[in-house]
Amino acid sequence: MSSAASQPVRTRVVREPKRAVYDREQVYRILDEAFLCHVGFVVDGQPYVIPTSYGRRGDQLYIHGSAASRMLRNLEAGIPVCVEVTLLDGLVMARSIFNQSMNYRSVVLLGTAVAVHDADEKLEALRLLSEHIMPGRWNDVRPPNEKEMKATSVLRMPIDEFSAKVRTGPPEDDEEDYAVACWAGVVPVAMTAGEPVTDPRTPVVPHPPEYAARYKR
Amino acid sequence: MSSAASQPVRTRVVREPKRAVYDREQVYRILDEAFLCHVGFVVDGQPYVIPTSYGRRGDQLYIHGSAASRMLRNLEAGIPVCVEVTLLDGLVMARSIFNQSMNYRSVVLLGTAVAVHDADEKLEALRLLSEHIMPGRWNDVRPPNEKEMKATSVLRMPIDEFSAKVRTGPPEDDEEDYAVACWAGVVPVAMTAGEPVTDPRTPVVPHPPEYAARYKR
Repeated sequence: MSSAASQPVRTRVVREPKRAVYDREQVYRILDEAFLCHVGFVVDGQPYVIPTSYGRRGDQLYIHGSAASRMLRNLEAGIPVCVEVTLLDGLVMARSIFNQSMNYRSVVLLGTAVAVHDADEKLEALRLLSEHIMPGRWNDVRPPNEKEMKATSVLRMPIDEFSAKVRTGPPEDDEEDYAVACWAGVVPVAMTAGEPVTDPRTPVVPHPPEYAARYKR
Repeated sequence: MSSAASQPVRTRVVREPKRAVYDREQVYRILDEAFLCHVGFVVDGQPYVIPTSYGRRGDQLYIHGSAASRMLRNLEAGIPVCVEVTLLDGLVMARSIFNQSMNYRSVVLLGTAVAVHDADEKLEALRLLSEHIMPGRWNDVRPPNEKEMKATSVLRMPIDEFSAKVRTGPPEDDEEDYAVACWAGVVPVAMTAGEPVTDPRTPVVPHPPEYAARYKR
């Protein structure tokens, strides 16, 4: 676990440093629980942020998309990128508006992405991406054909320069505010899955598999 | 409702243009349902993406944070910014890996933020931000004092140059794949709230108010 002092200044947490996490294993746990990331990149001085899914293998993050997409075309050129992932865990209701907060776990990862050209690595990255979102799905579906592989870009980014910020627990009010006649606590929030909706067209297999029926992060 | 042709190229949806939404009212509905945005900005050529909450009044978006935060200090200088908001609605399980998808509603907003210095507008922005996340809360808590107002920065950004992308409905498979012996459909996902957890310290008001007990977006 690296300390704040040894952390590169670009990913050192400035505000509320007690919430900073520079530990790789903790960061991996956040990355493995979430599956949606927000990718920032710059074109002509303008920042863009695009939501997309990702997969991880060891210290490498994979994203994919249409070979024609603006994001993928730009990132393939090897420009600086920021990947942000946030899990929202609760709405923290303090006794003062100033101390209202959220419980969350977020990761910011800086670096440069490179295009994956090796066919085996590309297919494996697509498997990682799919299994990361819905474990078990890959074996049930038709795998990508040559044309589809060509239409898909996969990028790989090293998990090298990163930090996380985590808040947990009850509100933290100023001492004098604990007497305020106002409920205080946390409203937990989480992403939950509902009953799968079977595609009404040609339901060859009419009932969802376990991984879809009992989906949970 | 503006058309794709009249849309500035920076926010024109390139991939899957049939999913593009340039209609202001639809964009407002997405912004009003979500409350977490992902703010992209550039420092020394490096993009950063930071999650934060926001509020909206008409065609203005407000974000806030510590006056000492890296993001707020940078944005106050009037640099280009991208605000992205995504609501995830479902995991779309197609019969081929290539057509797996997600149902989502996302907004990308480009522009420049300015610091709000007017005391009344700043307080109103903080109220908007609070009521956007937890309607009803503002009237229960201790309002900000002068010191807290000084420690808080509020930024305002016009909702001017934007686009949204929306996917709904069942998977869209290639014709020949409808015969694949594999379940297909959508696993709906949503952010849901659990039972409020009352702060164990000095619970002057021991039971959560309705807005917390029945929280729902």
